[in-house]
Amino acid sequence: MSKEIGITAKKTEDLPEWYTQIVTKAELADYAPMKGFMVLRPYGFALWEQIKTYFDRRLKESGHSNAYFPLLIPESLLKKEAEHFSGFTPEVFWVTHAGENKLSERLAVRPTSETIIYDAYSKWVRSWRDLPLLINVWNSVLRAEITATKPFLRTSEFLWQEGHTVHATQEDTDKEVLLILEYYRQLIEDQLAIPVLTGYKSEREKFVGALYTTTLEAMMPDGRAIQMGTSHNLGQNFSKPFEIKYLGKDGQTHYAWTASWGVSWRLISAMIMLHGDDRGLIIPPRIAPIQTVVVPIYYKTGDQGQIKQKCDLVFNQLTNAGITTYLDNREQYTPGWKFNEWELKGVPLRIEIGPKDVEKRQVTMVRRDNRMKTTANEDEVIAATRQCLEGIQSNLQIKAKAILDASITRTDDYNVFKKTLTERGGFIRSTWCGEVACEDKIKLETGATIRTIPFNEPTSGTCVLCGKPAAKVAYFAKSY
Amino acid sequence: MSKEIGITAKKTEDLPEWYTQIVTKAELADYAPMKGFMVLRPYGFALWEQIKTYFDRRLKESGHSNAYFPLLIPESLLKKEAEHFSGFTPEVFWVTHAGENKLSERLAVRPTSETIIYDAYSKWVRSWRDLPLLINVWNSVLRAEITATKPFLRTSEFLWQEGHTVHATQEDTDKEVLLILEYYRQLIEDQLAIPVLTGYKSEREKFVGALYTTTLEAMMPDGRAIQMGTSHNLGQNFSKPFEIKYLGKDGQTHYAWTASWGVSWRLISAMIMLHGDDRGLIIPPRIAPIQTVVVPIYYKTGDQGQIKQKCDLVFNQLTNAGITTYLDNREQYTPGWKFNEWELKGVPLRIEIGPKDVEKRQVTMVRRDNRMKTTANEDEVIAATRQCLEGIQSNLQIKAKAILDASITRTDDYNVFKKTLTERGGFIRSTWCGEVACEDKIKLETGATIRTIPFNEPTSGTCVLCGKPAAKVAYFAKSY
Repeated sequence: MSKEIGITAKKTEDLPEWYTQIVTKAELADYAPMKGFMVLRPYGFALWEQIKTYFDRRLKESGHSNAYFPLLIPESLLKKEAEHFSGFTPEVFWVTHAGENKLSERLAVRPTSETIIYDAYSKWVRSWRDLPLLINVWNSVLRAEITATKPFLRTSEFLWQEGHTVHATQEDTDKEVLLILEYYRQLIEDQLAIPVLTGYKSEREKFVGALYTTTLEAMMPDGRAIQMGTSHNLGQNFSKPFEIKYLGKDGQTHYAWTASWGVSWRLISAMIMLHGDDRGLIIPPRIAPIQTVVVPIYYKTGDQGQIKQKCDLVFNQLTNAGITTYLDNREQYTPGWKFNEWELKGVPLRIEIGPKDVEKRQVTMVRRDNRMKTTANEDEVIAATRQCLEGIQSNLQIKAKAILDASITRTDDYNVFKKTLTERGGFIRSTWCGEVACEDKIKLETGATIRTIPFNEPTSGTCVLCGKPAAKVAYFAKSY
Repeated sequence: MSKEIGITAKKTEDLPEWYTQIVTKAELADYAPMKGFMVLRPYGFALWEQIKTYFDRRLKESGHSNAYFPLLIPESLLKKEAEHFSGFTPEVFWVTHAGENKLSERLAVRPTSETIIYDAYSKWVRSWRDLPLLINVWNSVLRAEITATKPFLRTSEFLWQEGHTVHATQEDTDKEVLLILEYYRQLIEDQLAIPVLTGYKSEREKFVGALYTTTLEAMMPDGRAIQMGTSHNLGQNFSKPFEIKYLGKDGQTHYAWTASWGVSWRLISAMIMLHGDDRGLIIPPRIAPIQTVVVPIYYKTGDQGQIKQKCDLVFNQLTNAGITTYLDNREQYTPGWKFNEWELKGVPLRIEIGPKDVEKRQVTMVRRDNRMKTTANEDEVIAATRQCLEGIQSNLQIKAKAILDASITRTDDYNVFKKTLTERGGFIRSTWCGEVACEDKIKLETGATIRTIPFNEPTSGTCVLCGKPAAKVAYFAKSY
């Protein structure tokens, strides 16, 4: 593989450059001509489709439906919840003209859809029989990014899903918020093999307009955290200005409760950074668009008939067994070139079939994660492939969990806190008085924010900064 | 069913009012607060998902991949193909600000994605080995509508798919254009049960910037045609300004050829208008989000155990057989209310299970299309359901084909042409000199345009307007 095609940066030496190379050279994404925007190429889109297909099934099984709401939102609607509006307005792209005609009111390109959706919900919700209303949308949202573009991580437009649900009571809303958080955890930990910390956001860090926000936070190899998804209880903060009311069983009219939740293609950026190596991507088998690639190896012309036949057979066996397989019988490339390309693209398992494999009635298998080479009897190809793929999935999970665990420093000493952040980053688990003043000062002095406040963790001791009695345990980190 | 819930307009008396009621009361869509925009509700989205799932599979089987390109397009990029730009510019929504900052260049909210996609393709296509490049996008596009909103038919934003492919030669491009047209025909005729005329668009009616456009045209009950989808050969009209070039096997650099093609949620509007009746929607079984609804019928409390058990059994049998089934065991509604609701929503087949059905070891089946009631032995529920659903699909196809055939008037007499258009509409098959002057004059005088010029139809006689020798056969109609 030529230098132009392979990754030339080392992950441990220059993570940003390594990341950029991997995204473009593995053909996941490309830069668009406008600053801040990217193109999602077919291989990247196939990854997103894998995530989407899995999660969409979970949502449907639990009674959620998909719908579609307009891209453009009148300014007056976006302004209805004041805090929400002021949070988003600096990033909003504004449409002011249609053709040559100036519009009477500016239209926002949706930065998120709460307001346009609640306008509809206020018409649809009438009675307790209409609740819960469980709707999800797969779309893109736009928020102007002024800093440098980082594909999947910092872009002015991103693909995501946004769920918007309406409930009769606070208790029902809490349950939905936590149900979705659990679904996200399963998607992220079990499918993407990325372990996370879960908990609440602080008041400072919560979604603008929410009663409270719950979050999932992962740790990247450079010691910075990444927010993987959030699930919010919006209380009655939106149902009041938008007049989402229902007639209860008690014959009285009540304001409803709402929740919203989302994950974006940002999940892909964490997957790249956490699992990849200097040869390229490593995609966890459960989410891989191609799980196994079959590569024929010809040494001389006479080989081809039997090898080709065996490759076709193995390809068909694996495909019929539900294992997503690509048979790479392109003639213009050498086996070595193909090995490099599929390693760059992170295909979990490579199956090589050459003259010796035909002779010995076997296949040769090479794992992408640890590059271990084994052989399997040709009668046991399916079982051996399944076992290999499961082994890779679990190896990635174990390695990633070890990275997360090793990244956590427990301290209530502010000097250790600062030193750790400077020297190695990671999560700092500290106790905190609960005051935003301390939170602000810590951010100012160290760059770290509260990533999450864990659920149900008993608190004792004093605030890491001010020394007053602690109210909460908090995980601090620098973040993407 | 109260008047508020059921359809109060007659299809034959007031098609526009009937259409509006069906769209909103069957909960397919709702109006958005901004003129021209609509909300696609869960039931409407489920219909679109059915279309999407079917067609996406066809595309993938034939080597096409999905991708995603930015929503916003710089004005300079949109201007690169002048004819294309002038065609779209009156309808473009322009973004001029991000937050409070005025942008240095206006950004168009995509009215179609040729330009932003070709900008990327110019980087991706290098060699003949990269061709064909077969990419599809599922997204929404925006084109400002100044006339009254008509859900699914005339909206300023609509969901669609846009395919954009690059080929080495004109011949390869022609093949792609016709392959997709055939896939569209199968989707529309075989799945949606809507027969169409296919052929070329005239120069006047073709896509702005295309070498030629092919189209599929359906006829609605009011005598107006509806364009169901188009597939364009764009020649080298875009590859030249966008510099999409490849190194051929001959060692020379060549401009590539491009094609684009799309169908939108407009397909749903034609399905509604063609198949629906005064009770509501009639959805063809192959595309129905719910194919069968099972309704328990209790007369007295003692019935419930056995009936409930049998409903569960039938629901499970049908679901396991791959028939999409909804068990309507809601207790707050009567069977009669449920019948009306599912008829309004167009579910092809209703299965009723009451005391007599339990006693006789049977189920009662009611077809939505002709409301015929039959019974089936409980051991044969799956086979009987399949047979019924196939019968409905084929009945809808036959009825729709008869409407199309009966709508076609063949004449070369301009007086008959005008009289037919005024009195009953439909397609007028005439011969035409091929001159745009005649085409323009016919439109001015009658409101009819050339909907399509059929493939390979021998031409003789004279132009219906000017009397000069005919160059082409053309189907004229008024249209949506």
